Amino acid sequence: MRIGILTGGGDCPGLNAVIRAVVRKGVTEYGDEIVGFRDGWRGVLDGDTVPVDLAAVRGLLPRGGTVLGTSRTNPYSVEGGPERVRETLGRLGIDALVPIGGEDTLGVATRLAETGVRMVGVPKTIDNDLDATDYTFGFDTAVGVAMEAIDRLHTTGDSHHRTLVVEVMGRHAGWIALHAGMAGGASVVLIPEHPFDVDGVVAHCLHRFESGYSPIVVVSEGATPRDGDLMLSTGDEDAFGHVRLGGIGPALAALIEERTGRESRAVVLGHVQRGGTPSPFDRVLATRFGLAAVDAVHAGESGVMVALRGTDIVRVPLSTATAQLKLVPPERYAEAEVFFG
Amino acid sequence: MRIGILTGGGDCPGLNAVIRAVVRKGVTEYGDEIVGFRDGWRGVLDGDTVPVDLAAVRGLLPRGGTVLGTSRTNPYSVEGGPERVRETLGRLGIDALVPIGGEDTLGVATRLAETGVRMVGVPKTIDNDLDATDYTFGFDTAVGVAMEAIDRLHTTGDSHHRTLVVEVMGRHAGWIALHAGMAGGASVVLIPEHPFDVDGVVAHCLHRFESGYSPIVVVSEGATPRDGDLMLSTGDEDAFGHVRLGGIGPALAALIEERTGRESRAVVLGHVQRGGTPSPFDRVLATRFGLAAVDAVHAGESGVMVALRGTDIVRVPLSTATAQLKLVPPERYAEAEVFFG
Amino acid sequence: MRIGILTGGGDCPGLNAVIRAVVRKGVTEYGDEIVGFRDGWRGVLDGDTVPVDLAAVRGLLPRGGTVLGTSRTNPYSVEGGPERVRETLGRLGIDALVPIGGEDTLGVATRLAETGVRMVGVPKTIDNDLDATDYTFGFDTAVGVAMEAIDRLHTTGDSHHRTLVVEVMGRHAGWIALHAGMAGGASVVLIPEHPFDVDGVVAHCLHRFESGYSPIVVVSEGATPRDGDLMLSTGDEDAFGHVRLGGIGPALAALIEERTGRESRAVVLGHVQRGGTPSPFDRVLATRFGLAAVDAVHAGESGVMVALRGTDIVRVPLSTATAQLKLVPPERYAEAEVFFG
Amino acid sequence: MRIGILTGGGDCPGLNAVIRAVVRKGVTEYGDEIVGFRDGWRGVLDGDTVPVDLAAVRGLLPRGGTVLGTSRTNPYSVEGGPERVRETLGRLGIDALVPIGGEDTLGVATRLAETGVRMVGVPKTIDNDLDATDYTFGFDTAVGVAMEAIDRLHTTGDSHHRTLVVEVMGRHAGWIALHAGMAGGASVVLIPEHPFDVDGVVAHCLHRFESGYSPIVVVSEGATPRDGDLMLSTGDEDAFGHVRLGGIGPALAALIEERTGRESRAVVLGHVQRGGTPSPFDRVLATRFGLAAVDAVHAGESGVMVALRGTDIVRVPLSTATAQLKLVPPERYAEAEVFFG
Repeated sequence: MRIGILTGGGDCPGLNAVIRAVVRKGVTEYGDEIVGFRDGWRGVLDGDTVPVDLAAVRGLLPRGGTVLGTSRTNPYSVEGGPERVRETLGRLGIDALVPIGGEDTLGVATRLAETGVRMVGVPKTIDNDLDATDYTFGFDTAVGVAMEAIDRLHTTGDSHHRTLVVEVMGRHAGWIALHAGMAGGASVVLIPEHPFDVDGVVAHCLHRFESGYSPIVVVSEGATPRDGDLMLSTGDEDAFGHVRLGGIGPALAALIEERTGRESRAVVLGHVQRGGTPSPFDRVLATRFGLAAVDAVHAGESGVMVALRGTDIVRVPLSTATAQLKLVPPERYAEAEVFFG
Repeated sequence: MRIGILTGGGDCPGLNAVIRAVVRKGVTEYGDEIVGFRDGWRGVLDGDTVPVDLAAVRGLLPRGGTVLGTSRTNPYSVEGGPERVRETLGRLGIDALVPIGGEDTLGVATRLAETGVRMVGVPKTIDNDLDATDYTFGFDTAVGVAMEAIDRLHTTGDSHHRTLVVEVMGRHAGWIALHAGMAGGASVVLIPEHPFDVDGVVAHCLHRFESGYSPIVVVSEGATPRDGDLMLSTGDEDAFGHVRLGGIGPALAALIEERTGRESRAVVLGHVQRGGTPSPFDRVLATRFGLAAVDAVHAGESGVMVALRGTDIVRVPLSTATAQLKLVPPERYAEAEVFFG
Repeated sequence: MRIGILTGGGDCPGLNAVIRAVVRKGVTEYGDEIVGFRDGWRGVLDGDTVPVDLAAVRGLLPRGGTVLGTSRTNPYSVEGGPERVRETLGRLGIDALVPIGGEDTLGVATRLAETGVRMVGVPKTIDNDLDATDYTFGFDTAVGVAMEAIDRLHTTGDSHHRTLVVEVMGRHAGWIALHAGMAGGASVVLIPEHPFDVDGVVAHCLHRFESGYSPIVVVSEGATPRDGDLMLSTGDEDAFGHVRLGGIGPALAALIEERTGRESRAVVLGHVQRGGTPSPFDRVLATRFGLAAVDAVHAGESGVMVALRGTDIVRVPLSTATAQLKLVPPERYAEAEVFFG
Repeated sequence: MRIGILTGGGDCPGLNAVIRAVVRKGVTEYGDEIVGFRDGWRGVLDGDTVPVDLAAVRGLLPRGGTVLGTSRTNPYSVEGGPERVRETLGRLGIDALVPIGGEDTLGVATRLAETGVRMVGVPKTIDNDLDATDYTFGFDTAVGVAMEAIDRLHTTGDSHHRTLVVEVMGRHAGWIALHAGMAGGASVVLIPEHPFDVDGVVAHCLHRFESGYSPIVVVSEGATPRDGDLMLSTGDEDAFGHVRLGGIGPALAALIEERTGRESRAVVLGHVQRGGTPSPFDRVLATRFGLAAVDAVHAGESGVMVALRGTDIVRVPLSTATAQLKLVPPERYAEAEVFFG
């Protein structure tokens, strides 16, 4: 078979591991030919391809990012997009597509599958907010990067008797903050699912100082205060007339400094969380996803996506990728709260 | 309540994280007093305790090993052992015990629980070979150490056109070899569950050399050849009259060198795999196990063990800890085989 | 002898290693008693001490930060400060002081030494801008943190065809940017010693894109544009009417995006660079500094500071700590320029 | 100019960084053409070359090993070797050679330079035992790998109350053991320069146990006992009738177990120390060596080698590469001894 493959949306450690696994499995076990499309759906729209044979995937496993490139192009936002996709696939003789991506990329895949394009998706979201799978690759790596930063910040915070606020990824779901905060021994973890009370945060910080140590506050980029006393749009002034600098992390640090009367600093981890070599967990998960996707194609499946359930890779409807977000449930947040203060 | 806690058997990254979580949860949410026993069941036999209050567990989360110490002492192998255990617990007013350990430690716990001692176990096995739980803490860390070694060895192998054999932990189950080999891009993975054919290994190595790269062979310490042409007891001579050096890894390296006609070297990772700071996955899992154990105690449970199922922490009978080993199933090994050669 | 020890100014990986070495050497070889002052000169002013015996320094070697705490308190800015320092030292029977710090901390030490206080300094500056020593501890660790971030950012930059700007420490001297940029394969390195031309930076970025890869721009926090087309005070508007967000890094990223017509993102590494466990180089250097300081005290030296020259630890006048900054010389910057574009 | 480049002897993290720097500097600043010879002097003997242009060195900086391959082939041990070398260089129009290697590789270079071949060497020895330079690249990385292993082993040793013996590289010089042991907080460091007394080692171990912690003994592969009570040739029986397993590390562990009456285990780090991505220090040093070598060629130098002196890269006679080994001097060993026990 001729199988097309593409990566869309934000990049993630493990994308290359999926690509490699698809190629190794497809070529050596099924005699497939794998065609890579550059920059996600853009490459399909433009017929922009790159050969991905066995030689092309050597050495890819430990590399972050995606050799195929990525974009946020959506064929359904382009005049005649879906037709151009089908035209490209027909012209190149593509029997099936393996799109690797998140809500947007797989949303396109879902709609195309309904029009008869054979499609087996691989889920990707560094935020781990896809309900259909226990975990997605990239998440464990991101948590690791954040945790290592927190480990480092503990000692500098303690030495200077300062609060340190660490802003991590997570626009809608607080999984990275939750796991990195729990793994790093944070004094407070703030997530989008649970609007926070600034006075409560300050109380935890003060309690921590009393124990002789300095607080680390881990905050998702999408976390918001319950009482609206922080303004969130970049460049606005905050409640105290300060110009907001960059995000919730620095704003919160300024506020904590003001209310605790002790120095506070913010670190915004940003893109470091999504780059670089994947963790062992993510390399194994991404590899297994790739293998399972090829098997699903050859099993005649379409409109499905591979997913992790426990230790098994299963197939679920592609449409579940765009169903509700997987948010941090209250009982998981309560686990983290045991360590607050 | 007064809750006793102990760690038995081989140490594992994450033990301290469990201890910390038990103390934080027990003391701050339930008002418990936690009593630590030194060196596993030995401390219970001897009434050798150490206070573990909130101050004692500060800073424990990222530390490998166990502050309580560990041993392989088994009260059932000691004259009057079980009676001495009950005597100690009665004298110290211990309401419940939280033993953290593997097959042996929890086997003792199972038998004691049957005699009426309140017992909630926490499973520990760096080899990940406990059937009752998806994963145990320490395993992900060990896989990470092994994978980093493999990452490093690729470049030196390629530079010298040598085969490198990496011996990892896993006496009965090949999980560490399987995951580290898959994550590290091994050319061959050999596990106890699947006796290997030396000629097949050699063929994979030669195939790898032909592609212009050098092979990495990952082998569990408990892997054995199908055809008996390697002798396994340390110090014996091997089939070629060489004195066996230390284990399967060096023996296999010597054999591969002989049959491929190219240099081969072995690395035995050994104790480095079980020491040091836990990975983020293991810190979170160990912490959640500790929290859940305390909840189980207060829920009036006994004779149970906490376990991971998917993303949930559940309770399973303690006796399942000593039920059959979780071996690598053939379909998981087949996944790795896609990348052989 | 009774030797006082203190750490002042910004913290640095390796401070604890110095403290440990002073104690091990002083106590076991000379029979000294070591008295720790809390939070730099503040602790001397207030007579706020902490015992640092052999037990107190166990396990300190790999820990970042300083167990003694630190502050920027300057006795010469305090009414009657120098007198209070001498009073404390007299009252506690301190024979000599080992202050560990940078320009400010050692500047105080220099002046106090001139008044007869016996003083052997240990230089500390994470920016590596002290002229009297080849290297200071903490610098290698900071470079390592920055390099790892750059390694990670390469793959995400390439996947998204984006410029990534990494802002690192270095207010007056560009050593961290120079070394991290050279080690990380940066496309451009911008340092305070060499005001930059924005058009030149943009040209390097475009050239890098043409080669099929994405540029990484490493910029010291203190770097400034030659042509003044970036305003540097936080909260100001930049040349394009955008509110400046946090520092040179984000401002430069916005400008590069505008002029290249391709997405650009900034990462500000901040405090992560100065926290956490020291690198091997820094652990050895800090340890040797501590040993040499104690030897200098017992050799009857005062008004000196230990320093690294080649592979030797030597003694230099304390006053050299406050002499001219060690800036990146043009020929070292020229080395980095070979790799621009 | 046409400049040949080759890497000989054992591989080392940083070799690729040197190659990249030579190419970047030579091609972009001088318009050189760089010709790579495969597998050290073997490639020169056989005229086996590989193109190394700008594209070929992209992405090489962080990669361990050497893309050129390496061997221990010595033209002076081959019939007509030197003539074949000159013939190859003449035929390919090579104006100058940049050999990167240790004593053997540069020894060949020294002799060839005397016969008129233009030659600028780059020193390489992971053991850091070359007298003509402060440091060589690869050493810092090897120390880092060993130190991380020691960091990990502390916790498992303490948990089990065991002595752990770590065998590191260093056949003739103990630099890796000295630095890794000092950085890792070893209880004893044993090096070839200082034959050890087994009873002294045991005494340090017992003293360490008394303090409540477990000893880590770091031993160079070339260290030997003063009193000859350990036999060193592999496969021999030791003084207690045990077959020696692999090296000094396991032999010493067995002996320590016997004499302390407490469990002891050995870890032999082996090839992991020389593989993988270079540390920041080594990436910068290797890059600067490569740049300086090209400058030396264009300055008309021959028979020289680049070297590090303090923070400067200097040129020294090639013959110094084969002069006396740089051994650990007694005063450096004395520094480590402060921390024994």
